[in-house]
Amino acid sequence: MQIEDVRAAAVRLDGVVHRTPVLRSRTLDDLVGAEVFLKCENFQRTGSFKLRGAYHAASRLPADRLARGLITYSSGNHGQAVAFAARELGVPAVVLMPADAPRSKREATIGYGAEVVTFDRYADDREALGRALASDRGLTLVPPYDHPDVIAGQGTVALELLDAVEGLEMLVVPVGGGGLMAGSAIVATGLHPGIRLIGVEPLAGDDTRRSLDAGRRVAIEVPRTIADGQAARLPGELTFAVNRRLVEGIVLVSDDEIRDAMRFAVGRLKIVTEPSGASALAALLATRIGRLPSRVGVVVSGGNVDAGRFAELLVEDVSTSS
Amino acid sequence: MQIEDVRAAAVRLDGVVHRTPVLRSRTLDDLVGAEVFLKCENFQRTGSFKLRGAYHAASRLPADRLARGLITYSSGNHGQAVAFAARELGVPAVVLMPADAPRSKREATIGYGAEVVTFDRYADDREALGRALASDRGLTLVPPYDHPDVIAGQGTVALELLDAVEGLEMLVVPVGGGGLMAGSAIVATGLHPGIRLIGVEPLAGDDTRRSLDAGRRVAIEVPRTIADGQAARLPGELTFAVNRRLVEGIVLVSDDEIRDAMRFAVGRLKIVTEPSGASALAALLATRIGRLPSRVGVVVSGGNVDAGRFAELLVEDVSTSS
Repeated sequence: MQIEDVRAAAVRLDGVVHRTPVLRSRTLDDLVGAEVFLKCENFQRTGSFKLRGAYHAASRLPADRLARGLITYSSGNHGQAVAFAARELGVPAVVLMPADAPRSKREATIGYGAEVVTFDRYADDREALGRALASDRGLTLVPPYDHPDVIAGQGTVALELLDAVEGLEMLVVPVGGGGLMAGSAIVATGLHPGIRLIGVEPLAGDDTRRSLDAGRRVAIEVPRTIADGQAARLPGELTFAVNRRLVEGIVLVSDDEIRDAMRFAVGRLKIVTEPSGASALAALLATRIGRLPSRVGVVVSGGNVDAGRFAELLVEDVSTSS
Repeated sequence: MQIEDVRAAAVRLDGVVHRTPVLRSRTLDDLVGAEVFLKCENFQRTGSFKLRGAYHAASRLPADRLARGLITYSSGNHGQAVAFAARELGVPAVVLMPADAPRSKREATIGYGAEVVTFDRYADDREALGRALASDRGLTLVPPYDHPDVIAGQGTVALELLDAVEGLEMLVVPVGGGGLMAGSAIVATGLHPGIRLIGVEPLAGDDTRRSLDAGRRVAIEVPRTIADGQAARLPGELTFAVNRRLVEGIVLVSDDEIRDAMRFAVGRLKIVTEPSGASALAALLATRIGRLPSRVGVVVSGGNVDAGRFAELLVEDVSTSS
């Protein structure tokens, strides 16, 4: 994959995704000793960067396959992104969701016009159910990260940031399955060969960190972390191949550090972030990266959290009360 | 006062205040049946529009008076604005604050370089204390709203909004002392004579509404409302004279409606608003205005609320638990 793939994705995404704002905060700059540029994908349509990859991948399907519709297993940001992309493209979408998924996620997905099919997370085989539905109706699965078109779509986040801000010497990017990191790394090293790329994982969801250490993909237990968007058990095959080659390292942040970053975002930036969306900011605030260069780009990847849950996360010691 | 006064203020404020973003939300448009343009002063430096009026008024002082310094009674957004303006202008500032003011407000004010002088809100005469300090040190009081230079500064909010968005047929603006409303009304009617101007007060802080009904300024009891930025007891003399002439009417919103708007801002807009900052949005969401024209501008006036208090406000039924 090359930067040209990301540029082509940007052309397809033009007019569909927002060119999200880049926020600054003098307080943040003073705290961390660098000029920080926050690329705010929490303001993206559907509330996260995931729309970029999902729409791009769907839009590249052959017309006859696309017309039959899309399917995804994700009940999170990728699920909403696939639902929204299908509506934009005028095709049906099915989102498989556990029957006990939060009502707000279910409503958002239905609100975007998708059909929600529920399953019993303890009794049913989600993948078998998905395959059966896909085969019956001719639906195409849109994978959440491990696909070249998804990676190229996510890379447009970094393309926009590097286009908007000159002289960035480091990008700090949240890592779940690794699609945003891989796409960003392809763009950043393509434009600025010396740029440093730092990934951020939650302490309990350190599959990419462990995999980099081991030199091969390593699976971990299902992570218990507030950063549900980064609770991957295993890096993607394609994303890991890219990240292994281009990323300097992965730093880890605790759930408490993520909550501190969310509170900072409220108090100082006046923005709402979901836990995964605040993890890269947390890495800076918790000084996990060591000495920073003078200009640092940070991706705030999403803001999908309902108000009640958000309030819980902002309150001190929520971890001990839940 | 004329639109030229506001244009002159905009020139003085250039490079000092942010040209804050105008946000859109399709969900909001669909809900209220109009195109809504949110002027987000929660992203302003110091976290609210108050910097505009405070800096403008201070910058217009004669050099010798300015050099001796500024003083204000406000422990809220205006106090932070005066502190910040003084720092920008390189002069001292004193902010009088009750000894039991929230630590976050005190810290923010000190962080901007001001001297905080505390008083006992039950025993001391704040105004006498202020007058004594001002006279001893030659400090100039920067009033929070009832001054032509403050009004002209606040008017730059509407000037920027009307410059950024064509064809607005209505502006909806929070009203406390009435400075933001008056400045906005001068600009809006100057640029678009037929534009409709709607003010919004909290139900318990309806001094301007009552005053408009009575045709003269009417004082109310100290309002008990979560919208502390709008807890005025009496409209300003100058602001009321302007608003009486130019504003179509004042609509009222309950604290619960304000909380609903704050939750909407979190869930859909991904922004942090303080209660006063969300009151104009609340008026739209609670359908307090009647039939809307096709394009409506709404001022989100501020976002200063610390994370813990913000969490409290987001939780349902906080009113019954506090």
